[in-house]
Amino acid sequence: MSLIIIGTVAFDAIETPFGKTDKIVGGAATYASLAASYFYNKVKIVGVVGDDFHQEDISTFTKHGIDTEGLQIKEGEKSFFWSGKYHNDMNSRDTLITELNVLADFDPIIPESYQDCEYLMLGNLTPQVQQTVIKRLKNRPKLIVLDTMNFWMDIALNDLLDTLKMIDVLTINDEEARQLSGEYSLVKAAKKILEMGPKYLIIKKGEHGALLFHEDKVFSTPALPLAEVFDPTGAGDTFAGGFIGYLAKVGTINFDTMKNAIIYGSALASFCVEKFGTEKIVNLTEAEVAGRIQEFVNLSAFTLTEA
Amino acid sequence: MSLIIIGTVAFDAIETPFGKTDKIVGGAATYASLAASYFYNKVKIVGVVGDDFHQEDISTFTKHGIDTEGLQIKEGEKSFFWSGKYHNDMNSRDTLITELNVLADFDPIIPESYQDCEYLMLGNLTPQVQQTVIKRLKNRPKLIVLDTMNFWMDIALNDLLDTLKMIDVLTINDEEARQLSGEYSLVKAAKKILEMGPKYLIIKKGEHGALLFHEDKVFSTPALPLAEVFDPTGAGDTFAGGFIGYLAKVGTINFDTMKNAIIYGSALASFCVEKFGTEKIVNLTEAEVAGRIQEFVNLSAFTLTEA
Repeated sequence: MSLIIIGTVAFDAIETPFGKTDKIVGGAATYASLAASYFYNKVKIVGVVGDDFHQEDISTFTKHGIDTEGLQIKEGEKSFFWSGKYHNDMNSRDTLITELNVLADFDPIIPESYQDCEYLMLGNLTPQVQQTVIKRLKNRPKLIVLDTMNFWMDIALNDLLDTLKMIDVLTINDEEARQLSGEYSLVKAAKKILEMGPKYLIIKKGEHGALLFHEDKVFSTPALPLAEVFDPTGAGDTFAGGFIGYLAKVGTINFDTMKNAIIYGSALASFCVEKFGTEKIVNLTEAEVAGRIQEFVNLSAFTLTEA
Repeated sequence: MSLIIIGTVAFDAIETPFGKTDKIVGGAATYASLAASYFYNKVKIVGVVGDDFHQEDISTFTKHGIDTEGLQIKEGEKSFFWSGKYHNDMNSRDTLITELNVLADFDPIIPESYQDCEYLMLGNLTPQVQQTVIKRLKNRPKLIVLDTMNFWMDIALNDLLDTLKMIDVLTINDEEARQLSGEYSLVKAAKKILEMGPKYLIIKKGEHGALLFHEDKVFSTPALPLAEVFDPTGAGDTFAGGFIGYLAKVGTINFDTMKNAIIYGSALASFCVEKFGTEKIVNLTEAEVAGRIQEFVNLSAFTLTEA
């Protein structure tokens, strides 16, 4: 049994009000698999890189016990590269460079050893590629989580809608939920989106936390108020990885375990933004993670006392 | 012992995407005192109206057991009038008309029967008037809560800063916290504001809930996700009134009772936005209030289960 995470594996160059990086390892599958590895020890990655992705870059994964058999290395080609600059409020950013490179014709290969997949995280990629992965698994995983973004709603909406019919959990941000549903109210948006296929919907609200919708139920969790958001890159992917990593570990899927999964995902995401790229989340101790989760509990827990 | 609420008592004309009202009773003290009256039965109001404010308008208060001895009625003058129009997203509005009328030279008179004040809510008004009320009370109340807005930061900052030194709890929204502190991060903003005088700071984030800061502690509560926000007018005042009404009832001031007070205030505010003006909050049953508070508990409660 295993957890497969598919998504971009990339080089990023990031500029924030606090500084800038050279090319550093990034990508949705990178953040998500690192996050998941803190809770579950059978994480397997599917992705593609060029031969500029060296052994030491791959060791980012292997040090965390992440299986990289499904990470294709294209000789003579270059890895996906993204460069972006965040504005002062850290809530918006400009993309400076996007070089698709190996990603342009990415055909996700599922190694035979990955066919024990029980949990599947489809990180942000074209809906077509996400769908291909589902189809190439011989057995339908117990849980399929899909992350996407407004870009695919703009240019590949029908593919996305088809894919939504095949999954269990969708994670998107509030603006994307509004775009996908055509509803401003997130309650109305959630109702419409849950009719599109997913049984659970997570709406990520950045510094305002996240909402989980399922049937008629809703759960709200805050983000940890931070003195400094250093670099938001990868926070959503880290959240998703921590979320599915937790669920893979506990092995039970229901509204209560989902609530916990959101707390675990949020805790890891709160680390992610404290340093550039994956710098913080490659080196967390068990005590740090447990401490942060307790901070989340303290942040919203109260004992109701009647007036 | 009593709870005094000072603030505007006004006529409002409101336009939202859902419709528009004629002149209806509004104002910070109106919303706050109605909200407080659900939890505490010795609520006393201080304010000023013109002779266009009729006996039936005053009965809005008296029906809720609210003492109106401190509500001055100026013969031959007109009540404060505000008219506003909300945009489609309901998060921003245009003020169409502001007629100060009786409010222009409001001198808050504290009746002798109000000198038993133990809890004081200073609703949004000029900081000078808020300060005058504190000075006219012979005994310093056990708890002073102040609500203000960006307008006073723009035109009466020094008066506001003086007043902040005299209070216990400040309630403002996120943009106002940023303006008052000069810090974008709410954690940093809170640290600076707590150094200005208040021992507790509540940052209201509208549809994203509220944050409570005290010493090094922080508590986060969500807003109830609503399918329809019909009219946001008065939600902040309703929150503040429910907040201090709860505290007056339980009579103990600490971080834990404050958490509960925020839940109670948020629950009443969630009713407020469901109809125009005070329409919803004038007629709540005990069962409705208890049910809504339970919804808040369900919204954010979870039992931590380790991965």
